Amino acid sequence: MFSYERRAYYHETDQMGIIHHSNYLKWMEEARIALMDKLGFSYKKMEDLGVISPVTGVDLEYKNPTKFNDIVIINVKVLEYTGVKLTFEYEIVSKETNKINAIGHSKHCFLMDGKIVSLKRKLIEFHDAFMKYIEEDM
Amino acid sequence: MFSYERRAYYHETDQMGIIHHSNYLKWMEEARIALMDKLGFSYKKMEDLGVISPVTGVDLEYKNPTKFNDIVIINVKVLEYTGVKLTFEYEIVSKETNKINAIGHSKHCFLMDGKIVSLKRKLIEFHDAFMKYIEEDM
Amino acid sequence: MFSYERRAYYHETDQMGIIHHSNYLKWMEEARIALMDKLGFSYKKMEDLGVISPVTGVDLEYKNPTKFNDIVIINVKVLEYTGVKLTFEYEIVSKETNKINAIGHSKHCFLMDGKIVSLKRKLIEFHDAFMKYIEEDM
Amino acid sequence: MFSYERRAYYHETDQMGIIHHSNYLKWMEEARIALMDKLGFSYKKMEDLGVISPVTGVDLEYKNPTKFNDIVIINVKVLEYTGVKLTFEYEIVSKETNKINAIGHSKHCFLMDGKIVSLKRKLIEFHDAFMKYIEEDM
Repeated sequence: MFSYERRAYYHETDQMGIIHHSNYLKWMEEARIALMDKLGFSYKKMEDLGVISPVTGVDLEYKNPTKFNDIVIINVKVLEYTGVKLTFEYEIVSKETNKINAIGHSKHCFLMDGKIVSLKRKLIEFHDAFMKYIEEDM
Repeated sequence: MFSYERRAYYHETDQMGIIHHSNYLKWMEEARIALMDKLGFSYKKMEDLGVISPVTGVDLEYKNPTKFNDIVIINVKVLEYTGVKLTFEYEIVSKETNKINAIGHSKHCFLMDGKIVSLKRKLIEFHDAFMKYIEEDM
Repeated sequence: MFSYERRAYYHETDQMGIIHHSNYLKWMEEARIALMDKLGFSYKKMEDLGVISPVTGVDLEYKNPTKFNDIVIINVKVLEYTGVKLTFEYEIVSKETNKINAIGHSKHCFLMDGKIVSLKRKLIEFHDAFMKYIEEDM
Repeated sequence: MFSYERRAYYHETDQMGIIHHSNYLKWMEEARIALMDKLGFSYKKMEDLGVISPVTGVDLEYKNPTKFNDIVIINVKVLEYTGVKLTFEYEIVSKETNKINAIGHSKHCFLMDGKIVSLKRKLIEFHDAFMKYIEEDM
């Protein structure tokens, strides 16, 4: 499991006095991009090679609020990867309290020129890196 | 079913050339607040009376991208209301193509002074309005 | 002067209990895009024709806070247009109180393939429409 | 001058393929809050003590675009502090190219129970810390 750390910003709060729930989707995105960067097949490079990976689904369970200036750790792992589909699982943890603030998932496909493609066929080096990472993670 | 209409803004796009997926959670919030406004028990009034209704869970299935300047209709309905828990269902539809861009849900509880409360006990007029709306909707 | 109206959303508030100041830049963008749509030379069409109009400068003076669910009117006008440079002026007014919440400006240039271009040379129909609008506005 | 470093996120891009200009106001906020944290009179503590510091004005000159995944350094310094008014100056620099992407300012006042107050009178320890920091910075 890969851990991505960041602070909760003032501009992410709402008038409830907590971080607005929509920001968790942004944090999840930051975490999976940081994971891909670290593994050497960055999302930026993927887009430069003409493949985008849009989000096809998300879910989130909010358990504890995050407050302004809290440091959160977003633990992220690949739950499923088929070459065509990719699912990440996330755990958003408060660094100070060690409490789980939220649990979530995001699902992705791969598109080239607007059409669904298999990474295995179009970007074999990304596919291999994903496969290697998944094997090592288990 | 209540229909809330709005345009997709330029500042909501990302470099994929589509609306960033996190904005759908914001649109769902706008739609449920507009629904409550229309029913006469506004979310603003609820907060003024000391009750907040945080999001406890969300899910979203993205089916078609929304583009800049598209008009979207967010259809929203109450799926479940128990006095303590509230679940909304959403359908985000492109006005031009009539295609469903996304389907989602949000779950909520009610808090007063940081504690979970029953609307039935704390804000009976809201509870009654919700009950009346649900009955009429069926 | 063109008037663009919209509601202040819950997700735009911060924990001060007011609309976060960064959102005013988004509202200004919405207002100038709505103005261009209305004049028949939409920003969407401009981008489809290969010209983008990035922001080169902004300023904002905040006079009164905007609260959640307030309706704001963003009055926008072209302050200067030279074919190469474009400056808008904005007044953000609370519909209920008629108070001016903020005054601002945004400056823009035009880019084609990453290079600064003159609308007069590259998109003459946009240039003519701008000129006509400016003359009528005076 | 205090330097705050952060990455430009994917969710901050727009369909021009660059970071949306409104995000620079958020980065400036993050930088001044990080500065205050470092100086030992955190903005969080200020709010806990009942004083908020809303933004009364901003300006920004955009010189070079920031791209997704770029690391930016936000240099921030106090330009003016009178006890009642506070002005910050910012320089947003690309870490890789060393180019200045933007220059900006933000102006602030201090409010307690909705009324303008002097930090010198209401939060003397914050005032003293600000004065000490300004003297050392010169």
